[in-house]
Amino acid sequence: MIKPRLFTPGPIEVPPEVLVEMAKPIFHHRTERFKELFKQTNDGLKKLLLTENDVLTLAGSGTSAMEAAIVCSARRDRTVLVANGGKFAERWVKVCKAYGLAVDDVPVKWGTAISPELVKEKLATGKYGSVVVTQSETSTATAADLKGIAAEVAKTDALLIVDAITAAGALPLKMDEWGVDLVGIGSQKALMLPPGLAFVAVSKKAWAVIENVKSGLLYLDLKAYRKSLADSDVPYTPAITLIRGLKVSLDMIHAVGIEKVWARTAALAEGFRQAMRALGLEVFSKQPSDSVTGIMYPAGVTDKDFRKALRTRYGCNVAGGQGELDGKMFRVSHMGWVDAVETIGLVAAIEYTLKSLGQKVELGKGVAAAAKAMERWE
Amino acid sequence: MIKPRLFTPGPIEVPPEVLVEMAKPIFHHRTERFKELFKQTNDGLKKLLLTENDVLTLAGSGTSAMEAAIVCSARRDRTVLVANGGKFAERWVKVCKAYGLAVDDVPVKWGTAISPELVKEKLATGKYGSVVVTQSETSTATAADLKGIAAEVAKTDALLIVDAITAAGALPLKMDEWGVDLVGIGSQKALMLPPGLAFVAVSKKAWAVIENVKSGLLYLDLKAYRKSLADSDVPYTPAITLIRGLKVSLDMIHAVGIEKVWARTAALAEGFRQAMRALGLEVFSKQPSDSVTGIMYPAGVTDKDFRKALRTRYGCNVAGGQGELDGKMFRVSHMGWVDAVETIGLVAAIEYTLKSLGQKVELGKGVAAAAKAMERWE
Repeated sequence: MIKPRLFTPGPIEVPPEVLVEMAKPIFHHRTERFKELFKQTNDGLKKLLLTENDVLTLAGSGTSAMEAAIVCSARRDRTVLVANGGKFAERWVKVCKAYGLAVDDVPVKWGTAISPELVKEKLATGKYGSVVVTQSETSTATAADLKGIAAEVAKTDALLIVDAITAAGALPLKMDEWGVDLVGIGSQKALMLPPGLAFVAVSKKAWAVIENVKSGLLYLDLKAYRKSLADSDVPYTPAITLIRGLKVSLDMIHAVGIEKVWARTAALAEGFRQAMRALGLEVFSKQPSDSVTGIMYPAGVTDKDFRKALRTRYGCNVAGGQGELDGKMFRVSHMGWVDAVETIGLVAAIEYTLKSLGQKVELGKGVAAAAKAMERWE
Repeated sequence: MIKPRLFTPGPIEVPPEVLVEMAKPIFHHRTERFKELFKQTNDGLKKLLLTENDVLTLAGSGTSAMEAAIVCSARRDRTVLVANGGKFAERWVKVCKAYGLAVDDVPVKWGTAISPELVKEKLATGKYGSVVVTQSETSTATAADLKGIAAEVAKTDALLIVDAITAAGALPLKMDEWGVDLVGIGSQKALMLPPGLAFVAVSKKAWAVIENVKSGLLYLDLKAYRKSLADSDVPYTPAITLIRGLKVSLDMIHAVGIEKVWARTAALAEGFRQAMRALGLEVFSKQPSDSVTGIMYPAGVTDKDFRKALRTRYGCNVAGGQGELDGKMFRVSHMGWVDAVETIGLVAAIEYTLKSLGQKVELGKGVAAAAKAMERWE
């Protein structure tokens, strides 16, 4: 009788409408029915990213999207710059190394993001063919100034590759207006789906490069997806069920309006941060992402005890820290199918849990702060 | 993107495990498979009511259970006493009248319940064959002292018929220990199922009477159900899907333990009442039920505006008032698949809604009171 809730930064809760859609009988993908569905999801994805560019759909995780984006677009006579401020950015360095691509692993202090100024300075060397930026670094719960960075990259012939896995659909991201070249997304974040779908959006500037790169890839070769897309199709068997779910979740998002969804996410994040501060807890990031919040444990509270109590007593699943933050931080998602009602409830569960673990907690202080701050959520 | 939640006092939320069970392919009921399932749900129902008595399962609503209980057990030379303190008790008077049964409609001030003393006094006349008491009167959110009443009725040859529709599985009810004769229940309350199943538990004392009553009923004739029950069967086509769901919900309840479920419900109710009082609102009942709370609207707030805003902005569905309380009260359930996390969230939604309707609300005051009071919920 414990009501399970995912406040983890992916997977997040899947709306019942999506679950029901995915429970319907399977149909075949080499059909007009699939093409019609796929046309609709492709339109919905473009609307999500505010782009007229192609958005390609892969059966894979967010990592597959980023691997495809990085490897397919890396001119072999140039270097890839990876702004590395967390566990996910680290993975994009590994992708480059796995394929023998020249890569500059630019360290960024955890809890901060690379600045547009530093990107500008690096690009001035003319060395880089692409710049990889994680818009919302999930491991540190930190957001980059993507608009500012994009403005710098757009002035050069380099491509901007954005890991928008915990950003697209949660944080402002205007692909065309800002001039972003490649965007990688996974389905289990703000798109409110189970994991299993990955998306890569590709600008015209990026296609011009990709056309001349011999990536050596087959399954993740973006050119094959582009070719099929012209006929509203995919080169390899699509995850039909997830694409059906995607249609429903995109319709839900667009019925609200993407800018309002961003505002909602921001309101939840701001309210949650204020609640945690009211409880005397520290928000780790200096540039907190609104899609996920990372909170440092107070002295005397272990990650294992805290998350276990929160999960087993209150059904609230939050994530732990990663890498150097393992055991020191817990992380809470504000993406997608979550609202003020349950986020305020989560704050109460956190108060109880901390108190049960021996912390001095004035019960009600966090929830009151959250209730005050989240008034404008809707 | 508004997350719908039922805080209505029936139907309440149905757990996903139950929904999934009910979504499985239908099977036939004249089979060993059905008998095996039915045996298990019958055992689970006995455990729910702490009884060794028969618990009969009907395809019907709670009203059908009460009609069966009242009509089948009414000795035609005696009078039925109905303690009438709300819209549901009123219905039991109507049942008696529809069947031409002699009935004493004993008025009880709304927001209070009949006292054991008054029951004792009435029974002393020797006039009554049965006493109908609504354990939790949903319309006034008021609980009766069932244990005290049962002690008085048990001393006589009269039967105690309890409307436990919003009580069984939520409020303490020990059928055998307290000596209750007939208990009527519906599925859409603390049993966490959709509506469609009704249950009647019958004591040995009651059977002895029922055997000698010509009820004139067919579908609701309890004797037919008793006969079939001996073979783990039912006389008319059962609601198979709901019975499958019942197996799962009963298993969930008994995995926690019925006494702990009662304690949980009480903790939510107490916390919610304290939250409402902290916001300056009035709990209507003088003997509040822990399964449902009725709160009076402050001056200037209309039922229509309040419930619409709560539902459309926060997805929180609460019930309005009934009868003379229509438009004056809203009601919130604490039964079944609901917890502190979302009840505290509901309090925040109520704060926002009242404020948006022009009430002076200190945001956070209600949730803080709820968080303090619900600490012991688990």
